[in-house]
Amino acid sequence: MRDNFLTSVLKELNGTSADIEASGVISTDGLMMAAALPAGLDEDRVGAMSAAMLSLGFRTAQELGRGGLEQVLIKGVKGYVLMTHAGEEAVLTIMAKPNAKLGLIFLDVKRAAESIASLI
Amino acid sequence: MRDNFLTSVLKELNGTSADIEASGVISTDGLMMAAALPAGLDEDRVGAMSAAMLSLGFRTAQELGRGGLEQVLIKGVKGYVLMTHAGEEAVLTIMAKPNAKLGLIFLDVKRAAESIASLI
Repeated sequence: MRDNFLTSVLKELNGTSADIEASGVISTDGLMMAAALPAGLDEDRVGAMSAAMLSLGFRTAQELGRGGLEQVLIKGVKGYVLMTHAGEEAVLTIMAKPNAKLGLIFLDVKRAAESIASLI
Repeated sequence: MRDNFLTSVLKELNGTSADIEASGVISTDGLMMAAALPAGLDEDRVGAMSAAMLSLGFRTAQELGRGGLEQVLIKGVKGYVLMTHAGEEAVLTIMAKPNAKLGLIFLDVKRAAESIASLI
């Protein structure tokens, strides 16, 4: 039941912007809780890379005096990966196109992360 | 001599925006090449965390089909860390305040990274 709610939040998020290609909710230990991924993108791979990036991002933020970690953004030639904490125990990861409007994406993802945090 | 040029680019960058608190140029293996850091921020620590984040960011971008890595942004409660490739062999890392105007920072850092790439 909760999975259905999470999946509906993700589908709504992917539908909000044509720039968002994929999204998933991952527990902080790297296990996928819900996903709206295109065919060919492996859930386990998204989960593992999200958990690894967040763990190192958390340590980097601590070591460099940036306080508690809120988000990690990776920009590649072919698009973005954005990871955002959704409550204490989950992470919302989205993938977006290279020409995505980042301001809108930050806003939509923040709202979705708040919805997810309230569901978990 | 080259170090002087790199340091002057960093000082100019820190002076461009009051939101930028610190900056450094780091080789892709994590050694500091030039830095304009405030007292209390250890060069080795900045170098090591930058190299680790970029290495994992590179792998994440590859695994999730985002192509070659351009930037990694970490948002913490107390501010940002932004790492940008400056040519093939160096990375420009900056630290910015939590309320920094990200659009301006992306622009200033991109220009500084181009200057650094042309010097190395």
